Amino acid sequence: MAHSAAITSAPSYSLTALPFTTTYSSPSGIFLAKPTWNPKMLHLRSRPPVRAAVSIEKETPEAHRPDTFLRESDDQAHSSSSSSSVRARFEKMIREAQDTVCTALEAADGGASFKEDVWSRPGGGGGISRVLQDGAVWEKAGVNVSVVYGVMPPEAYRAAKAAASPDQKPGPIPFFAAGISSVLHPKNPFAPTLHFNYRYFETDAPKDAPGAPRQWWFGGGTDLTPAYIFEEDVKHFHSTQKKACDKFNPDFYPRFKKWCDDYFYIKHRDERRGLGGIFFDDLNDYDQEMLLSFATECANSVIPAYIPIIERRKDLPFTEQQKAWQQLRRGRYVEFNLVYDRGTTFGLKTGGRIESILVSLPLTARWEYDHKPEEGSEEWKLLDACINPKEWV
Amino acid sequence: MAHSAAITSAPSYSLTALPFTTTYSSPSGIFLAKPTWNPKMLHLRSRPPVRAAVSIEKETPEAHRPDTFLRESDDQAHSSSSSSSVRARFEKMIREAQDTVCTALEAADGGASFKEDVWSRPGGGGGISRVLQDGAVWEKAGVNVSVVYGVMPPEAYRAAKAAASPDQKPGPIPFFAAGISSVLHPKNPFAPTLHFNYRYFETDAPKDAPGAPRQWWFGGGTDLTPAYIFEEDVKHFHSTQKKACDKFNPDFYPRFKKWCDDYFYIKHRDERRGLGGIFFDDLNDYDQEMLLSFATECANSVIPAYIPIIERRKDLPFTEQQKAWQQLRRGRYVEFNLVYDRGTTFGLKTGGRIESILVSLPLTARWEYDHKPEEGSEEWKLLDACINPKEWV
Repeated sequence: MAHSAAITSAPSYSLTALPFTTTYSSPSGIFLAKPTWNPKMLHLRSRPPVRAAVSIEKETPEAHRPDTFLRESDDQAHSSSSSSSVRARFEKMIREAQDTVCTALEAADGGASFKEDVWSRPGGGGGISRVLQDGAVWEKAGVNVSVVYGVMPPEAYRAAKAAASPDQKPGPIPFFAAGISSVLHPKNPFAPTLHFNYRYFETDAPKDAPGAPRQWWFGGGTDLTPAYIFEEDVKHFHSTQKKACDKFNPDFYPRFKKWCDDYFYIKHRDERRGLGGIFFDDLNDYDQEMLLSFATECANSVIPAYIPIIERRKDLPFTEQQKAWQQLRRGRYVEFNLVYDRGTTFGLKTGGRIESILVSLPLTARWEYDHKPEEGSEEWKLLDACINPKEWV
Repeated sequence: MAHSAAITSAPSYSLTALPFTTTYSSPSGIFLAKPTWNPKMLHLRSRPPVRAAVSIEKETPEAHRPDTFLRESDDQAHSSSSSSSVRARFEKMIREAQDTVCTALEAADGGASFKEDVWSRPGGGGGISRVLQDGAVWEKAGVNVSVVYGVMPPEAYRAAKAAASPDQKPGPIPFFAAGISSVLHPKNPFAPTLHFNYRYFETDAPKDAPGAPRQWWFGGGTDLTPAYIFEEDVKHFHSTQKKACDKFNPDFYPRFKKWCDDYFYIKHRDERRGLGGIFFDDLNDYDQEMLLSFATECANSVIPAYIPIIERRKDLPFTEQQKAWQQLRRGRYVEFNLVYDRGTTFGLKTGGRIESILVSLPLTARWEYDHKPEEGSEEWKLLDACINPKEWV
């Protein structure tokens, strides 16, 4: 168990960066999302940016996993679960999910085990990064949890602005964010990459804007990125997501499936990075307990959705050409994550833990000039499904 | 000779993208730079963005290289060279440089040859992409030239704004840009990657802002990205750059060497992507003829600076570990180009020719979680020189 000291040099971030947090889905140590504020405000702002209005402290490596990363005032984990805060129960859920997923992945890999890095921040919060590299099945698999206490500028919080009187400028709003995020890249080109991420976000009520409410919301999703299509795999994956959704609301699957197709879009290629799944963000228009149960159900569906596919594909023989095609699709994964993924781009700008953020990148990737699969080939079929998203269930 | 039809779907770009063009150094088909306008204006703008204020047409594949990509009104190439426009002479220079560089690279490679794609745009302009892939020496080498006619919003052109009366809003400003851009990735981990790019930019005088001048400027540079340091190689490379600079101005090398170190900075890693060289942009405060000669001298220095290094290193034996380290550095190259390079990020946003823009990416790259070279090792020495830029001559 090695403990890295990869501490970044940028402990604070500026107001200008925050607008990009609306859909934050990276495997980094920070998960932010903001339901009520329009990113276009960035372009309309007429004042110079207020530097250091938001800050996240530097992280410190820890030798042991703490029972909780919550601040003491938040930690009701030891009281009866019914009276626990949503913060405490969400942290407990993602930490259990991290354990369950890592155990299942190690068992399926049969060879390698996860390396763990634990870190904390002096004022509360921290995270656990687990990475399995060069295993028998996965070339790189990261499963991270993190808890963040930060402060957001009032400009990012419409409710505070609306409630404040015109000559009273509300101060910065403390926020809490916790999440689990994971990207799993197998070696075999017939075994798909999986990404999942579930997060919970809360703001405190702003002190100097009386009447402005405390806010909370959930976000996340699970999506599949194969290099080759096996219909039974994609159907199994999507129907597992649908089953989890349908337990809560029949509208969830169609809505979150489309949201996923829209989010993982590589604009400069006019194609999606993979075959989707579910994605949602800014969810707060349902009962909070229901959404906590829904996020839990989604996290618990990862292993049943994914491992049966891996078991079927991990040992299939493949050619060098098939491996090269997988590597080209990995190149697209890199393009999406570095250019579009708001979590990644936000994390890079704001001094998040770089190694945790970029663990989402594959071990290896490839870019050939002007590569075009032959029409009708298996490679072409995958590309076509990335360009024209299909209904799988 | 294959002619690709990789035509992107986004023929126009919005005002919001233009501010990122101040230092445009990608190997894409478009080269923009703007000397008098502060990118911070983006954050201070109080009006909504004007969509489609700037547009670049879709490109069309061409079966043959035209003599020139200039519009007829600009084409004075057939008159005596002394009376030729700078546009025409710059295009001639970069097309000759493309031929010379490609011939020298094919000779040094001894195996593969360049594949060429020619394209044009209906209203004038076009380009030639040449790519050598999977050669004996280079795994991927791209050498592109392009000529662009476009229109920029007056907000990007301070002179026009200053000259216009308050109630007269100047219209869009036509611009001309031409450039050569190249990235050369060898196979052998002891043979360095080279990038160079030289470009010339002109705006027309805005019609409805009387007194606002026509503007022009030069930009470019040549930089070296090895995975291992051979001092004699880096010294040879930098002294060739210095010699080219010193012919014109003793201040050029120190100034452009530092500019290069500053530009190729991967902020989230706090390291440069390589060992630098020279980089300049927005150069218009010297005689125009002198700067045209200087850009020509720089372009002509690429082969003498680079090929002797390649000859010494291309056949050195190497281990799998050394290859893996080269691949990790290639990962940093991808990070820089996709996250920071203004040419690349601008090109991706604005519908440039994607395959030309992304030909800068290596054939293969690698990301290991939390990789740290052993202190004092050869890998560590390279990393140290990327973190703390050195004086080589």
